[in-house]
Amino acid sequence: MLREDKGLAFMLRYENIAWYEDGAVKILDRRVYPAQVKFVICKNHREVAQAITDMVTQSAGPYLAAGMGMALAGWECKDMPKQDMWNYLESAAVTLSEARPTTSMRMREITGRCLRVAEEAMEHGTAVDEAVFLHTIEEINRKYAKLRLAASRLVPLIPNGGTVLTQCFGEAIVGLMLEEAKRKAKDMKVICAETRPYFQGARLTAAVVKEQGFDVTVITDNMPAYVMSEGMVDVFTSAADAISMDGYVVNKVGTFQIAVLCKYFGVPYFTTGFPDRGHADIQSVKIELRNPEQVLEAMGVRTAVPGVKGFYPAFDKTPPHLISGIVTDRGIFSPYNLADYYADVQI
Amino acid sequence: MLREDKGLAFMLRYENIAWYEDGAVKILDRRVYPAQVKFVICKNHREVAQAITDMVTQSAGPYLAAGMGMALAGWECKDMPKQDMWNYLESAAVTLSEARPTTSMRMREITGRCLRVAEEAMEHGTAVDEAVFLHTIEEINRKYAKLRLAASRLVPLIPNGGTVLTQCFGEAIVGLMLEEAKRKAKDMKVICAETRPYFQGARLTAAVVKEQGFDVTVITDNMPAYVMSEGMVDVFTSAADAISMDGYVVNKVGTFQIAVLCKYFGVPYFTTGFPDRGHADIQSVKIELRNPEQVLEAMGVRTAVPGVKGFYPAFDKTPPHLISGIVTDRGIFSPYNLADYYADVQI
Repeated sequence: MLREDKGLAFMLRYENIAWYEDGAVKILDRRVYPAQVKFVICKNHREVAQAITDMVTQSAGPYLAAGMGMALAGWECKDMPKQDMWNYLESAAVTLSEARPTTSMRMREITGRCLRVAEEAMEHGTAVDEAVFLHTIEEINRKYAKLRLAASRLVPLIPNGGTVLTQCFGEAIVGLMLEEAKRKAKDMKVICAETRPYFQGARLTAAVVKEQGFDVTVITDNMPAYVMSEGMVDVFTSAADAISMDGYVVNKVGTFQIAVLCKYFGVPYFTTGFPDRGHADIQSVKIELRNPEQVLEAMGVRTAVPGVKGFYPAFDKTPPHLISGIVTDRGIFSPYNLADYYADVQI
Repeated sequence: MLREDKGLAFMLRYENIAWYEDGAVKILDRRVYPAQVKFVICKNHREVAQAITDMVTQSAGPYLAAGMGMALAGWECKDMPKQDMWNYLESAAVTLSEARPTTSMRMREITGRCLRVAEEAMEHGTAVDEAVFLHTIEEINRKYAKLRLAASRLVPLIPNGGTVLTQCFGEAIVGLMLEEAKRKAKDMKVICAETRPYFQGARLTAAVVKEQGFDVTVITDNMPAYVMSEGMVDVFTSAADAISMDGYVVNKVGTFQIAVLCKYFGVPYFTTGFPDRGHADIQSVKIELRNPEQVLEAMGVRTAVPGVKGFYPAFDKTPPHLISGIVTDRGIFSPYNLADYYADVQI
């Protein structure tokens, strides 16, 4: 079976995240979903990079988009001489990786593996686009399998009849945790912080939770303390854009302050994701400052008068002492013990 | 001089808050300001109550609107027999007070004083509307004078060249603190949390700070931890919808979680306002749950798919151990020592 994404919510199916076909990559525009179901069609890898920069897709979407963008680059250069072709692909890998500065390390790993696959295809004289596309599908299949394992460890951490607070949108949390919860007939509710400025919580997460048939409530980003103080939250959980080996979680801005509140109210905070060997410590993570104008509007409507500044750090860094556990495919790790995630493999 | 609101920002001038004239009360519609400068015209006191309920005005606006609404009620019943007139005014006082459940105690005090003024006018055979109107102007003059005193104590708490983080919109903070800071040529910057779901921070506070000529930056409600972690905030300050005698601050939802973050990051939090003898303890304050649909939209645009619930607690309660000081006209008090605010008066 090529794709292992059957039975998932609309947003999590590969062809709705990013898909290479007929000399183009189509990407679901998460900036307007679910109000509109619209795809951005990218005719070359530069347009894919631009779409990633422009936040057409988010969460793990850019990783799949980067792989599909590399397949597209393979198609773009298919008639070039071998050396030009190679230079073209190497340059595409850089362009795509840099489209997302905060996780450029992970983006480089992904495009790097695509380059190795492309090199092999070139040696065997087979189509580069096809080879990179198939490799990308294999990678995401493996990734979903890992996320499913992580999700199966996360679900038992939620008390039966309990409520989970989430922030932003994360495939493992929203998609695979709920898939697992449904299979186990777990009785649970979800509260989504709306996650400004893009409202990923209100728009995307809430839509998927609803689609999966669970009770879902949206709150604004200034309400987590209130709902926790009322005993309405049993567990807070988020995905991670990066987890440094010294136990910091980099995730959509707002995660950090909810984690501080968790400590204050005695609510456990579990992060789902995989430790990043590319980040030995948090100092190597650079937080991306995005276009401040985006903070000054909401759903496309301007909020502040002209002359008022905005400030838009896209992510924040939650220190290990605020994290109850890193939930992975290989078990639940203390944030102070992440080397063990890789140690087990070598045994 | 009748009015003591000269030189203030547009939003803080009495006639732009709520104003009784020619058998109507006009109220600046803060729901759309500053994008639109629009007034809601109320033809009777019930329409004033409805405007308060509908959040046409906010912060201290409802208190002035309640007084102006009582003046309007005096005009409405001016041709009735004396007993009917009295019953009409008493019923108007209840209607107006109940338009804002969370601070109905303070609303009742205001309308109660209007009733006493009306009673006196009726005894002397003078116009009730005129008497209540003049009394209301006197009350707000006194209130602004008290807020000016509080503001003059708040400004020295801000380090020179420092940055103040605010939440929502508060007359004392935004209007009078900045007026005082300008007079003292204080070098300071303001960061406004946008304050969902109504964006009072982004729309109202930022507009006034800009109008007063200070540097102002808006952040979304999920960013206070980030800006504090970067050392960008020297002081957090907010107004209060109520301060109970046991030291809790009731204010726009979100204040509580910023106060928790202040404790975590070592940033002082000063509340400007007056202890409420009507609330001996926090148990007597009932937090108003507003229409949850309002959480599911932003600037009039729907965010979540149908079937998703919203939850909208309008205020939250910050406990005394998170408060560095209550800044009043009579000095800066510990939240554990509020009885002294009134004790001084009796000396």
